[in-house]
Amino acid sequence: MKHLAATIALLLLSLSKAVPGAAGTRIHPDLGITFTLNAPEARAVQVAGGDGLGAGPYSMTRDAEGVWSVTTPPAVPGFHYYWFVLDGVVVSDPASDSFFGYGKPTSGIEVPEAGADYYAISQVPHGEVREKWYWSKTTGEWRRAFVYTPPGYDKNPRTRYPVLFLQHGAGENETGWTRQGRAQFILDNLIAARKARPMIVVMDRGYAARPGQELVSIDGNTPLERVKAAFSVFEGVIVQDLIPVIDASYRTLPDRGHRAMAGLSMGGMQTLFIALHHLDMFAYIGSFSGPIAPDLDSPQPLSHAQKRFDPLTAYDAAFANPAAFNSRVKLLWLGVGSAEPEFFRAGIGGAAEALQAAGVRRVYVESNGTAHEWQTWRRALNDFLPRLFR
Amino acid sequence: MKHLAATIALLLLSLSKAVPGAAGTRIHPDLGITFTLNAPEARAVQVAGGDGLGAGPYSMTRDAEGVWSVTTPPAVPGFHYYWFVLDGVVVSDPASDSFFGYGKPTSGIEVPEAGADYYAISQVPHGEVREKWYWSKTTGEWRRAFVYTPPGYDKNPRTRYPVLFLQHGAGENETGWTRQGRAQFILDNLIAARKARPMIVVMDRGYAARPGQELVSIDGNTPLERVKAAFSVFEGVIVQDLIPVIDASYRTLPDRGHRAMAGLSMGGMQTLFIALHHLDMFAYIGSFSGPIAPDLDSPQPLSHAQKRFDPLTAYDAAFANPAAFNSRVKLLWLGVGSAEPEFFRAGIGGAAEALQAAGVRRVYVESNGTAHEWQTWRRALNDFLPRLFR
Repeated sequence: MKHLAATIALLLLSLSKAVPGAAGTRIHPDLGITFTLNAPEARAVQVAGGDGLGAGPYSMTRDAEGVWSVTTPPAVPGFHYYWFVLDGVVVSDPASDSFFGYGKPTSGIEVPEAGADYYAISQVPHGEVREKWYWSKTTGEWRRAFVYTPPGYDKNPRTRYPVLFLQHGAGENETGWTRQGRAQFILDNLIAARKARPMIVVMDRGYAARPGQELVSIDGNTPLERVKAAFSVFEGVIVQDLIPVIDASYRTLPDRGHRAMAGLSMGGMQTLFIALHHLDMFAYIGSFSGPIAPDLDSPQPLSHAQKRFDPLTAYDAAFANPAAFNSRVKLLWLGVGSAEPEFFRAGIGGAAEALQAAGVRRVYVESNGTAHEWQTWRRALNDFLPRLFR
Repeated sequence: MKHLAATIALLLLSLSKAVPGAAGTRIHPDLGITFTLNAPEARAVQVAGGDGLGAGPYSMTRDAEGVWSVTTPPAVPGFHYYWFVLDGVVVSDPASDSFFGYGKPTSGIEVPEAGADYYAISQVPHGEVREKWYWSKTTGEWRRAFVYTPPGYDKNPRTRYPVLFLQHGAGENETGWTRQGRAQFILDNLIAARKARPMIVVMDRGYAARPGQELVSIDGNTPLERVKAAFSVFEGVIVQDLIPVIDASYRTLPDRGHRAMAGLSMGGMQTLFIALHHLDMFAYIGSFSGPIAPDLDSPQPLSHAQKRFDPLTAYDAAFANPAAFNSRVKLLWLGVGSAEPEFFRAGIGGAAEALQAAGVRRVYVESNGTAHEWQTWRRALNDFLPRLFR
């Protein structure tokens, strides 16, 4: 019986504790954030996170009871990953929900943006986000995708819908667009306002290796030819496995005029790589903060290759005939946050300029004041969706 | 440009790192587990977790490079929560996926059970798990439930299905049954083997408070009358909000003969509280390791009340007329793990015995060798589902 009290305590563990967001983190009116961690025995605690939190890491101060805290300068609005560094170890905040980023579960905080309600859950009809397991011959594994079906999908069993394939960034996974990005609410709100056409959105996991092979390990110095090898396997998943499964499982409009692909950061790179190679399958293309990597056969890393963007040769000469491209591709959307590092702004902005100069029709949108973070990509999606399938 | 290398490194963060389970934890053939944590500056690291890991906490040993490790005694098969204690702070393992338990994201490890494939993802048709947002008048909030729809649901637009409402335990949430419990695969496998009838399964969040009120904070010493107050609000959510939404949104068979409720631990308590009060709505009832709490008007805590189980008066005299109960309720399923604490075994086993002695038809199943953990509840679900809607 010695476990009795503990067992019942566990059984009926504080219901209030079970509610994320109730705990120690506080956002002040100026958007400064106070982080706290109860760690009486720790010697040093810091907090750090995404660019929108400011420079960081911020050293925390211990009070007499052993609770460490710090208040950051005003943060940029939007979703920011963050973590504690507890005696040298990067750990999640027990008071935060967890979000898959940086290749692992990571804490996150939502800093409200005044007047921005386009990603809020509102009193409008809501679609569903469905966990869809499918077998990939390319990788020899069961894979999980999430599929947004719009409001009314089940009630209109003869209606068919266009499809957007929407990819996360490096270190994230197929949960990112709905958990961090709130894509389902952006869609619900746009559809309710008749600003976007009801559509199906498919969010897959952007990592793939052939059976028996290890996933390619990539960092900033990896030659682009190795990046290409990794993307090629994922291309097989999308083109040979996922699209046929989606067209067989849902009431899609299964033609290129009703199929789009977009992604953020690495997902934007993948989108350009895959969609520009398969213009017979996609008429709408979006790259949100996706670095321009025109020459994936290069033995050089990305930082070098991006500088050599040439609209005539880039992406296997997909843009070489601008008139043909313009008549075939209904939308090429490029964007970046104005507070992103020079590498992204210069590369993406430069490519957008060169494409325009070459006569390639594209949309280029800068998100004002936001970094290489989710607020940039929520805004991108909110701008991108109304332009689809018109 | 100083951020360039770091930014690209972040952008193209190791793809292999993005795959959970690839990291430091190893399960040995004898089911002992080696846990590791890289923490050169830490002074003390322990690992602890669910009962199936053994007594714990286990002190870890630092090697020359600052990596701490320990190998536990052989674990019980199944899913176990675990966590590190890093210089006195409970933290998640960065190498683990996160699972909502203990009121927060928690690490978890899956220890294989030899010969148990009923919860594996198999080469059978798979249902979908849908994220369903609905408005609750009871709580004045948008709530999220997960809804399993069986294979073929979309292909058979005139077929209607029975519905099981299935609840998680204390400290967990609506993700528990699919993430930890693998309920969708148990269903897929049983349905493919024609051992269970295709059905819809609804998994809601077992916490509810009226608008403007705080969630009731409960621990093992909370008087049962306060537990009842909390459960009553959740009862309103299920009966007044969720069931109508499910019947309006999905092709259900919306009558008591095709509606079941079950839950684990706290969810079992809630099931008995709600379903036994609404026998006009539920014909099938399951409580998996759910403590028997017959007298929720009591000012006493659970440990006291459970001892006073009397089939004639318990649950507002729901069992007082055994013949009437037996003709009305198609299934009353009670179960517990043989390795659970005495509190659970004695209370649940005792109630099952008293019910049988009183002439109440019930099924009572003990799970051999498993604790108050998910392996007990996977087995319970696998036993329970084939008995439904026959």
